[in-house]
Amino acid sequence: MESQEQSDQTALAEIGEFGLIALLRDTLGEPTDDTIVSGIADDAAVYRTDEDRVHVMTTDTLVEGVHFDRAFMPMEHLGFKALSVNVSDVVAMNASPRYATVSIGIPQNVSVEMITTVYEGLKQACDAYDMHIVGGDTNASHGLSLSISVVGAAAEEDVVYRTGAQVGDKICVTGDLGSSYAGLKVLLRNRERLQEQEEDFEPDLDPYSYVIRRHLAPPAQLKTVRDWGDAGVQPHALIDISDGLSAEVHHICEAGDLGAQLYEPALPIDPETRNTATDFGEDVTIYALFGGEDYELVFTIPEDELDALDPQTYTVVGEIVEPDDPEHPIKIQRAHGENVPLQPGGFDHFDGPSATAPPA
Amino acid sequence: MESQEQSDQTALAEIGEFGLIALLRDTLGEPTDDTIVSGIADDAAVYRTDEDRVHVMTTDTLVEGVHFDRAFMPMEHLGFKALSVNVSDVVAMNASPRYATVSIGIPQNVSVEMITTVYEGLKQACDAYDMHIVGGDTNASHGLSLSISVVGAAAEEDVVYRTGAQVGDKICVTGDLGSSYAGLKVLLRNRERLQEQEEDFEPDLDPYSYVIRRHLAPPAQLKTVRDWGDAGVQPHALIDISDGLSAEVHHICEAGDLGAQLYEPALPIDPETRNTATDFGEDVTIYALFGGEDYELVFTIPEDELDALDPQTYTVVGEIVEPDDPEHPIKIQRAHGENVPLQPGGFDHFDGPSATAPPA
Repeated sequence: MESQEQSDQTALAEIGEFGLIALLRDTLGEPTDDTIVSGIADDAAVYRTDEDRVHVMTTDTLVEGVHFDRAFMPMEHLGFKALSVNVSDVVAMNASPRYATVSIGIPQNVSVEMITTVYEGLKQACDAYDMHIVGGDTNASHGLSLSISVVGAAAEEDVVYRTGAQVGDKICVTGDLGSSYAGLKVLLRNRERLQEQEEDFEPDLDPYSYVIRRHLAPPAQLKTVRDWGDAGVQPHALIDISDGLSAEVHHICEAGDLGAQLYEPALPIDPETRNTATDFGEDVTIYALFGGEDYELVFTIPEDELDALDPQTYTVVGEIVEPDDPEHPIKIQRAHGENVPLQPGGFDHFDGPSATAPPA
Repeated sequence: MESQEQSDQTALAEIGEFGLIALLRDTLGEPTDDTIVSGIADDAAVYRTDEDRVHVMTTDTLVEGVHFDRAFMPMEHLGFKALSVNVSDVVAMNASPRYATVSIGIPQNVSVEMITTVYEGLKQACDAYDMHIVGGDTNASHGLSLSISVVGAAAEEDVVYRTGAQVGDKICVTGDLGSSYAGLKVLLRNRERLQEQEEDFEPDLDPYSYVIRRHLAPPAQLKTVRDWGDAGVQPHALIDISDGLSAEVHHICEAGDLGAQLYEPALPIDPETRNTATDFGEDVTIYALFGGEDYELVFTIPEDELDALDPQTYTVVGEIVEPDDPEHPIKIQRAHGENVPLQPGGFDHFDGPSATAPPA
C-alpha cells in the first residue's frame, strides 16, 4: 500500500535543497507582522525588539553520518562546532550572539560522559562568543544530533544583509579558504587507512594539524564584526562561507542582479591547505572556491572604506561588476590568465583533472 | 577498541533524563548576563529586550519512532503538533508566541509532497497562534524529525513562573485530562490490528474521534492566557501539562517546598476518554494523572481571583497546602474516600489492577 501511495510522490533529489526551501517558503507565505524586518531570506531572520534595536535568529543542525562522523569528531569539538556554525550566521548579519537553545538527539550507544563532553565544548564556545545557552531539550534519537538556535542583537541600522552589494565594491574575505575541506580530506583518508590497515597503524597527522582543526572546530568570525564596529565600518553586503566562496558570491550577486570578477592568485590559502591538495594531487583552488565549511566571512565594501581596517584581517579577492553575460555573471581570472565563468558548485567550460568540484 | 573505551562510561538510563539535564546545567554554569531573567529552569527561558519587556525562548523536537509513528501520524498534524508543543511552553510563561525557526530532518523515503504537507500544518498553527516562522534549515537524517524553537513576548511583570505558588492557592486546570493518552491507546491498538488482521480490516474510529484528535493535533492554550490578560488576572504559578498532571504539580510544589491536595472526583475527564479507558479495562484516573501530552495548563491562584474568570474555562482540582509529610508532599483524595500519596509517575501504596502508570 505504501509503495502505491508513494508512486505519485516527488523525490527530494528531483528539486534539490534550494528548490525545497523555495517551496516551503511559498507554503508558509510572507510574514505579515511588521516587527519582522527580514524573514527566510538571509543568514538569519531579523525582527524588531524596540524602536531601533533588532534581534536576529537562526537555527542549524549537525546530524551524525550527515555532517560529522563520530569516528573522527571529538565530542568537545562537536559541541564547539555546532554552536559556531550558528554564531557564524549571526555574525554574518553584523550582529552579536546572545542566547542559544540546544536540542540534543541521543542514540542508545552514547554515554553520559560523551554528552557531558559535548556540553563542555558548547560551554567553551559560549565563553569564546560571550553568550549563553538558556534552554534546550534532550531526546532519544537514531543518531547523535545537535539542533541549535541562536538569537543575536544589533542596532537595526547596523544590520548588514547579503543584498546590499554595489557595482565597484571590493569583494573581501576574512582568514583563509579551503582549509576545512583539506582537513576533511585528511580525516577521511585516515579513517579509510585505519579500517584497511593493520591494527597498529599510527597515522602522522602533525603536518595537517591546522587543516584538521579548521574542519573539526572552526571558529565564527565574531572578532571581525566587533572590529568593524570599533572602526565605524559597515560593509554593503555580508555572508558567511558555509558552502564555499563561489556559492556565497553567487548569493550576493543574485540578490542584486550583479556580476563579480574574482582573481585566483588573490585567494588566501594557507600553506598547509596547499600542501594537502598537493598530497592528494588536486587543485587547491577547487578547495578554496567550493570546499565549504570555512565559516569565514565574505563582504563587499567601497575601496576607500578599507583604509579604516587592519589589512591583516581581510583579503581583497575581486570586485562587484555589471554582469556582461547574464548566464555567467561571475568570472574568475585564473593564475594562468584565462578568465573563466564560475558556477556556484564548479567551473564552467574548464577542462583538466581538477575541474570536478568536491561534494558540498 | 570502542567497547574498551566505553566500559567505564555511564549509560543514560542510570541517571535518567532529569539527572542528565541537571548535569548539563552544571556543565554550562549559571548565566552571568544580567539581561537573562530566567535560564534553564522553567518551560522557557526569559531575557529582557527592553526596560520592561521580555522575550521567552523555548525549543522542542519531535522524532519519528520516539515521539510519533508515521504509520498513524498525518503529516499535517505533525506540523501542527510540533509547533503547538513549543507554543504551549511559551503560553506556560503567560507570554504570546511571535517567531519560530524550524529545523527539519528528512530521511530518504520522505517525499517533497509529505514535507510540504508538514509545512501546511505548520502554517495552520502559525495562523491559529498569530505568529510566524522566520527561518529554519533542512537536513538529511535517519528518521523524520522536527526541531522547533519559538520566541514569545511579554511585559516582564506579566511573566508567570512555575515557582510562585502559595499555600491556600487553588490548583486549576484548563480543558480536560487524559484524552491524548486515550487517543494514543486507540491508535496503537489500531496499528496492531492492522498489522495482524486481514487486509480489508476497516477500523471504526468514529467513537474515538475526539481522543485521537487530542493526541495527533493538540492545540496550545493561547486563548486562556489572552483571557487572563483581558480579565486582568495573573496566576501565582503556571506550567503546561506535557508529562501528566501529577508530574507538573510536583514541579510546582518542588519549586517552593510546598504540598498539594488533589481530588479525584474533580478531575475534568471527557466522556470519550472515560469510554476509552473502560474499553481497555483501565482506570481513567491513571490516564488523567499520568497520561501526558494533554498540553493543557495547570495554574495556582487565590480563590477570590477566580471570580474574574469564566467558570467554563477551568476546573479546580485541588489546593496548595503545607506539606505534612516531606516524603509525600502531594496527595489525592480518591473517589472512594482514601487519601493516597502521589508520585510524579504513579501512586504510592495503591493496590489494584489500575495502579500501573502508563509509560510517559
